[in-house]
Amino acid sequence: MSITRRDCEAMDRNDALASKRDLFTLPKGVIYLDGNSLGVLPKNVSQRVTAAVEQQWGETLIKSWNEHGWFHLPHKIGNRLARLVGAEKDSVIVGDSISVNLFKILSGALAQRRDRKIILTDSGNFPSDIYVAQGLTQFLDAGYEVKVVAPEDVAAAIDARVAVVMITEVDYRTARRHDMPALTKAAHAHGALMIWDLAHSAGAIPVDLTGGDADFAVGCTYKYLNGGPGAPAFLYVRPSLQDKVQPALVGWWGHARPFAFDLDFVPAPGVTRQQCGTQPILSMTALDAALDPFDDVDMGVLHRKSQALAKLFIDLVEEKCARYGLKLAGPRDMKQRGSHVSFHCPEGYGVMQALIAQGVIGDFRAPDIIRFGLTPLYNSFADIWDAAAILGQGLEEGLWKRPEYRARKPVT
Amino acid sequence: MSITRRDCEAMDRNDALASKRDLFTLPKGVIYLDGNSLGVLPKNVSQRVTAAVEQQWGETLIKSWNEHGWFHLPHKIGNRLARLVGAEKDSVIVGDSISVNLFKILSGALAQRRDRKIILTDSGNFPSDIYVAQGLTQFLDAGYEVKVVAPEDVAAAIDARVAVVMITEVDYRTARRHDMPALTKAAHAHGALMIWDLAHSAGAIPVDLTGGDADFAVGCTYKYLNGGPGAPAFLYVRPSLQDKVQPALVGWWGHARPFAFDLDFVPAPGVTRQQCGTQPILSMTALDAALDPFDDVDMGVLHRKSQALAKLFIDLVEEKCARYGLKLAGPRDMKQRGSHVSFHCPEGYGVMQALIAQGVIGDFRAPDIIRFGLTPLYNSFADIWDAAAILGQGLEEGLWKRPEYRARKPVT
Repeated sequence: MSITRRDCEAMDRNDALASKRDLFTLPKGVIYLDGNSLGVLPKNVSQRVTAAVEQQWGETLIKSWNEHGWFHLPHKIGNRLARLVGAEKDSVIVGDSISVNLFKILSGALAQRRDRKIILTDSGNFPSDIYVAQGLTQFLDAGYEVKVVAPEDVAAAIDARVAVVMITEVDYRTARRHDMPALTKAAHAHGALMIWDLAHSAGAIPVDLTGGDADFAVGCTYKYLNGGPGAPAFLYVRPSLQDKVQPALVGWWGHARPFAFDLDFVPAPGVTRQQCGTQPILSMTALDAALDPFDDVDMGVLHRKSQALAKLFIDLVEEKCARYGLKLAGPRDMKQRGSHVSFHCPEGYGVMQALIAQGVIGDFRAPDIIRFGLTPLYNSFADIWDAAAILGQGLEEGLWKRPEYRARKPVT
Repeated sequence: MSITRRDCEAMDRNDALASKRDLFTLPKGVIYLDGNSLGVLPKNVSQRVTAAVEQQWGETLIKSWNEHGWFHLPHKIGNRLARLVGAEKDSVIVGDSISVNLFKILSGALAQRRDRKIILTDSGNFPSDIYVAQGLTQFLDAGYEVKVVAPEDVAAAIDARVAVVMITEVDYRTARRHDMPALTKAAHAHGALMIWDLAHSAGAIPVDLTGGDADFAVGCTYKYLNGGPGAPAFLYVRPSLQDKVQPALVGWWGHARPFAFDLDFVPAPGVTRQQCGTQPILSMTALDAALDPFDDVDMGVLHRKSQALAKLFIDLVEEKCARYGLKLAGPRDMKQRGSHVSFHCPEGYGVMQALIAQGVIGDFRAPDIIRFGLTPLYNSFADIWDAAAILGQGLEEGLWKRPEYRARKPVT
């Protein structure tokens, strides 16, 4: 028997996280299933950013570095994130982009394994992560290899020639989730260092960097953490490695005494040395405010809702849309998935454009993936029902055939 | 005969830039001479940032990347800056920090000169720039040397072993200005590439990157350009080099087709390849708005006011404060100076703290420099007179001897 919208409304009434929805700005007439690309605006952000502009910058000016704690934002926000990713205090720092942070820790890791020449990753990794490794090894011009294998072949490909295993936990297309403890253990068994990219994990699923024995991690704050467009990324270094590694990319914020203005670089203790230059304070302030809704959230509770939303969406779409050739991407087992749901879909570009025109915002990823981010803090079960219904009806009506939806506009 | 405050008021009445002052938020009771550290808030910024938060992020969400031009901000703002630094269209890109950008172009430059092992710089360079070179060469572990000479010895130290000459045009302490065309010519004569850091130049003095034949440049937007705390930096690559250089640090924003999600990095043409990850859009928006007051400014007019302010300040301070041991830092010739004025000052830390307590905001730089940024868009000649008078009176009264001003609090 089919699940009805009324069933979904009942699930919403029993949802322990339902009240969180009121903390976010949700545009009218829109079902937003793209929070894995850009999270929605938390309602408290605008006032906090205005205060940072008008009072802190405008009135207190340069003194705000001390008086309003600008200096400590990278650490302060890092410590707020630490709980969400299972990291110890003072092991997470916020700033720069994922690519820049990955470069820092990848270079730092390679310098710890100078006799090894392979960076191992998989074809499900986000391409920019692979580009970072390629850019670094091409520059080094010293026999390094970036080895890209299929996701299921990573563990078997680790051997004593591998310096670093660099993996994104949740695949940006299929939502397939790697087994962090198992893969990290395999890397360590061969003496390799392990880097995790948590772009599609942080704020969506419980992550346990300490328990998973990760050496390094990077992550994104503008997806499930709702930090705002291009919000600064984060970086983790396990405590026992913090004083050993030194990135190739350093700057005065990573100096032991930045305001001594010494001519020689002396790395600061701890994760501080991973800082480089001055960070964009207005965007940092937005991120700091955006984390407020997470403060009392149990990541286990959040994860259970994520799984329930995903199972509901998969069931409804398969019921309503299977005959149009839609096929679930990634594993069906919820334990092996992140918090988005994707389908291989013939004519996926046009289908998504038609869906967006009807107010259901997901996105398309080449070659044929339609992708939906499910965000337990502000998506309701009724949202999911409505989105599946609109998708099913659009497919039935063949809306994607209309020229305005089929014409692909290149992005950028 | 001494200059009177009335003389300064007359100068303000004749100042072609006087009306610009109204475009900025100047806190009451404050004379702000620290615009070379953090520029003041332009009045149009807050509304623009609020619109980016509430309308663009809040309402249009992910579609804002296209609909509100977020994708093009790095180029758009780069082209607005190009005029201010004498660069051709599409040769400046905005994003990341100075240190990260310097790393990109330094690595790209080294890869163009693989047979040369020396990075030459001077002891007046901002330390973080030197740290970037040290971090990179220590990581390379391949016989590279970061050679630091006195500012006046740079030209003579260039020889065929030098890969890159890396210089900050205006000294952050003394305001001494290097001769860009002459030094660049000397570097090129020996086959070296030339990097200029414009942190204390851009928006303060006329820069002519094209005419000066610079290969690369980086610069800061939160000083004289008033982009806000930690606003993204900029980067310049001369057109003839743009398609030849590839930085060690790359990412998907520098890919020829970022949304094809290829597994191999293919650098975009032009300066675009110098982009790496996603930029903080709220801070980028503040910067974009902050440049509006510059749009109709002739940099020659601005420079003449800067020089007039500096000459006035030097004359007044020397008249009122010389007997307390203050001594001008840097050259006296205005053509060899940037837009800030510094004095060696015994007990400089306490003197600056006392001055700040009286509402005159400058800063202190170890070991003995009191530093004053003069910003022609919003500083008046009367400001300068008042600041010098307050400094002179404070020295006469020995305010700096008070315990609350002498006790040095470590920053960070």
